This record gives sequence, structure tokens and C-alpha cells, in this order.
Amino acid sequence: MPASRFDVLGIGNAIVDVISRAEDDFLIGQQMRKGGMALIDEARAETLYDAMGPTVEVSGGSAANTIVGAASFGARAAFVGKVKNDGLGQVFTHDIRAAGVAFETPPAADGSSTGRCYILVTPDGERTLNTYLGAAQDLHPDDIDPQAIADAAITYLEGYLWDPRDAKDAFIKAAKIAHETQRLVALTLSDSFCVDRWRDEFLDLIRSGMVDLLFANEAELHSLYQTADFDTAVGALRADARLAVVTRSEKGCIIVSRESTTGVHAVPVERVVDTTGAGDLFAAGFLFGVARGLATEDAARLGTLAAAEIIQHMGARPEISLKALAQENGFLD
Amino acid sequence: MPASRFDVLGIGNAIVDVISRAEDDFLIGQQMRKGGMALIDEARAETLYDAMGPTVEVSGGSAANTIVGAASFGARAAFVGKVKNDGLGQVFTHDIRAAGVAFETPPAADGSSTGRCYILVTPDGERTLNTYLGAAQDLHPDDIDPQAIADAAITYLEGYLWDPRDAKDAFIKAAKIAHETQRLVALTLSDSFCVDRWRDEFLDLIRSGMVDLLFANEAELHSLYQTADFDTAVGALRADARLAVVTRSEKGCIIVSRESTTGVHAVPVERVVDTTGAGDLFAAGFLFGVARGLATEDAARLGTLAAAEIIQHMGARPEISLKALAQENGFLD
Repeated sequence: MPASRFDVLGIGNAIVDVISRAEDDFLIGQQMRKGGMALIDEARAETLYDAMGPTVEVSGGSAANTIVGAASFGARAAFVGKVKNDGLGQVFTHDIRAAGVAFETPPAADGSSTGRCYILVTPDGERTLNTYLGAAQDLHPDDIDPQAIADAAITYLEGYLWDPRDAKDAFIKAAKIAHETQRLVALTLSDSFCVDRWRDEFLDLIRSGMVDLLFANEAELHSLYQTADFDTAVGALRADARLAVVTRSEKGCIIVSRESTTGVHAVPVERVVDTTGAGDLFAAGFLFGVARGLATEDAARLGTLAAAEIIQHMGARPEISLKALAQENGFLD
Repeated sequence: MPASRFDVLGIGNAIVDVISRAEDDFLIGQQMRKGGMALIDEARAETLYDAMGPTVEVSGGSAANTIVGAASFGARAAFVGKVKNDGLGQVFTHDIRAAGVAFETPPAADGSSTGRCYILVTPDGERTLNTYLGAAQDLHPDDIDPQAIADAAITYLEGYLWDPRDAKDAFIKAAKIAHETQRLVALTLSDSFCVDRWRDEFLDLIRSGMVDLLFANEAELHSLYQTADFDTAVGALRADARLAVVTRSEKGCIIVSRESTTGVHAVPVERVVDTTGAGDLFAAGFLFGVARGLATEDAARLGTLAAAEIIQHMGARPEISLKALAQENGFLD
């Protein structure tokens, strides 16, 4: 593999999270599917905001969280995604660059405002997402810089990119360039309902070899193979994917390859405050580990450590240096 | 005392916090006084933001944090403060109302944008504040509704109100109405440098009986009496104040009255993430306890519990219900 400028480059929806606590009754009253992600329009975004409790605003976006997490471990990292040149867009841009991530996608001058995700956190720490994509809708293949992809050891893509109009083409363009330049392509399935919307296309991507490394949680895996039986789903995954990691909340994760299936325990935490970003940050640790040549089990341990940090506070961006945390735990020198 | 509509009404600068981690070297490079609050203008606010790390935006303001904390304990609470009708102003208004706090101060239609406080959190959890007051500058005596003050068991004022132009007059108007209607007036000294700016006026307020209950931390107390000796300062406080609480970080607090001095221990916490709001939330618990007729020691225990919650995460607004936390700990029924 040629020398790389970036350990990992992520492409995803550029989103600011607007986080609030909510009771289960609120979700029921608002007809939300608990634990899922719903796409909403601008009018619904406004109505929902009025009904929500006090909020915290933090830059988010699934792949963006992952890339910031990888940078926090010490990765050389880049992100591609679309914001508008408005207040929230400036916040997103400031935050990702301040995290040490290269972010050069030009902001939209007009059109929809910067995308945001209203996140309702219920008392059990579970989160229910309502995303107004806004400017993220307008990510276009022209926003993919071939040189940047060729310079990244891993290009990481989020399944959510299948929702905006042109982002899918940007995704495929990037994946092709990555493989032409002997790089790895990683994909997260993002959300079980997203899988439900795009199941066949995701299966094609995995089976065709377009994806070298797949991330999924249990719900997404069950949705992908339309089965409630975990072992059946893992068996199917093993036949389809080169390398996959299935995250299982407090049960940790399993690493699935053609040759073997290995379980790695979760890091126990005293109190779960908000599970937003648990999967994103698991991916951050795993990708960083793989990019730095660690064994997959050791990479997974970095993932579980990062996930444990993120669920102990509100928001999906790490509050402490993950590199320092990994060093304290003896996982990194 | 007549029946009250509010347990506590707070008057303060309406501010959105923009929080970031920083190393001590950053503070030195930016010529900041660690642990203090500096007032900055709009140009400096922009330069500083560009230099800062990733941020989290949360509604803040010292007295506003206290009032939201009191509401989280179950207090009937109100807030008076000035925002502009802009994006951050809408966030502030949404958040404080969503916390169950009555907030009816009309927003400014033009002039400076909504105030914000850039908060640098160093690895020791200490925070250094840079406040751009913005619209909060324009709080005016006309914004004080006499009926609301008369309806509140306690009117709580922040020392920071001495910085904006007309806010001081609003403060004095409110305090006079409170006493005319047999209500209590509480004051926090806010910050040692603020005390340095307004020492004589604060001492006059305390000695003249305008203040029934005073909150200060050690640095503020030392600044008030210009002494490095704690016992000397407490002795002076005892002579001047009807009732005062001095917060002492991990050493808890002492309650000082003419008759006695009582220490109350801090609630131990495993890891301090960000001390922003520790004093504000201590005041929240104490004010709630006093308004509900608890003994001052029991009120202080509610304060230490709320302070312990707030320092374990970023931001100065509680992430969980303080009422539920107090009930879990057997402090409330």
C-alpha cells in the first residue's frame, strides 16, 4: 500500500446535533419510533423544536463523529460533507477543524440551511433521532477530491448517504477511487430503518466487494437479513462480508471474518447518560487501530473504550483526549 | 410572608455558553487570568472563537443556570434577562422555558447580538471565562415587572449585573420591591474580579441590609475583604451579612450567620470534567431548600448535590432531574 497522508477520510452528512432529554411518553405523543432515525422536513423541524425540552448544541453527523473520534486517538483525519455558510455551518466547520480534522468541502452559499439532528434522549440513555438534512442534501460528486481519497488509508462512508439525492454518487465515486489506488473502503449501515430503505443496494455493495470493512449494530444486521435470529444473521454476514464488526451495546462486539468470529467485551460504565454516538465512536477506535496496523481484536478494544467514554455524557464528540484515555488503559504507547 | 407564585426569581445576564477544552498554555498565550471572567468586545470574541478548540453550545448565564437548577429540583421559578431576537436568543429562550422557567423579558429587536460566554476548560476541570455581554447590556429597569418580584419568595441577583449599564438600576428596583413586599433578596458575588471592580458598592449592599442572603466562593470573599486569610474574611463577613454561604470547592461550604458558622461537606465525585456552574448550581439547591423552609444545613446539602452533578459533565445546566437525584439520595421525599 502506498504511503498515506490521512489514516482515515470520512464522507457523511454534516449535521449539528440539538440534544434534549425526553420521557418515553413524549416519543409516543410525537409518534416516533424509539431508537430510530426519522427524516423530517423544515416545518416539522420547527414544530418539534418548540415541543422539545432544553437543548445542547454540539456538532454531530455520524461519520463526522467517527472522524473526530479517530483524530482524538491521534489519527491523521479528513472529512467531506456539506454545510451552508450560516451560523450552524460555521459552528460545524469551526468544531471539526478545531478537532484537527482536514475539512475543505466548500459550504453552500444559498439553498437549505445547515442540517441538524434533533436527538431525544430517554431516561434509559437510548436516543431517538429526527434529522433535517438541509444543506447536507446537496453533497455532490464534484465535492469528492480524488487526490484526497487516494491519500487516505481508509475511506469511511455512512449508510445515511443513501438518503440525500446526489450523495450516493459521491459515495460510489469515492469508493472506486479508493480501490483504484489500493485503499480500503469501510461502511457503516447507520440505522435499521435506513437499511430497510436501501437493503438491496447495501447487500450489493457488500457482496460486490465494494466494501472491505462493514460496521453494523444488531438491529441493522437483523434488518439487513430480515431475520430476528442473531446466529442466522451472523452466518449470512460471514458469507457476504470480507470483514465485519457487529456492535452489541453492553455485550461488546463480535468481529466476523470468513475464517473466524471473535467476541470482544464492552468496557463497563457506571452510568449511561446518552448513547448518542456509541456506534460512531466504536468505529473511530476500530478504524484508527486498523489504520495503524493493530490486530482486529486490539482495534476493537480501542472501539469499546471510545464508546464507553461517549455514553457517559451528552453528545457524540469526545470530551477528553481518546489517545490519553487509551494510554491510561495501556492500550496505546 | 404572603403566599408566593414563584419560589425564586432570578435576574441576570442572559448568555449562551460556548464551551471548549484548552491547555494551560493556550490561556497563557491568550493572556487570560485562569479561573476568572474577562469582559470582551465583539472583535475579540471573533478572534478568540477562531483560536478555540471544538465547542459545545449550551444556554448559560450564572443566575439563569441557578434558576434552571432550582426548577430541576421542583421550584416554581422565573428569570429576567435580555437577549436579542436572533439565533442564539431563540436558543436561550427555548431552553429556559423548556426547563419550566417563566421567562417573559421581551427580546431586543435590534442592537447587539445575544450575549455569549467563551469558556475554556483546562485539564484540571477549572474554567476561564470570556464574556461578550451583547444584548444583556441592555437590561433596563423597565424590564422589571413589580408584580413578578412581589410574587417571588426570593429574588436572586448576580453580581455580574453591576457590569452592564442599566442593569444595576434594574437590580436595585427589584430589591426594593422585594423588601416592600416582605420578600427575601439573595445575591451572588459572581467572580473575584467582578468584586474587585465593585467592592465598595457590594459592601454597601450587604451592610445596608439590601441583601438577606449572600453567596460567595473563597476567592470572592478574599477579594471582598482584601485579605488572604480565610478566618479574617469570615470574621468580617459574620459582622456584615445576615446570612452567607461560602463555597469552597472540594471542601464543601460554610454557612455563616451572626449566631454560628457551620461546615457542610462536598459530595465526592469520581472525575471532575468541568467546574463551570458549580457555584451556580450550589445556589440552586440552597435557594430551593430555603424557599421550601428547610434548615440551612439541609439546604446546603441540596446545593452540594447539585454542584456534584454539574461538575461531572460539560456545561452548567443539569443533565438529569435534580429532584430525582435528591430523592435517590434521601434528601427529598
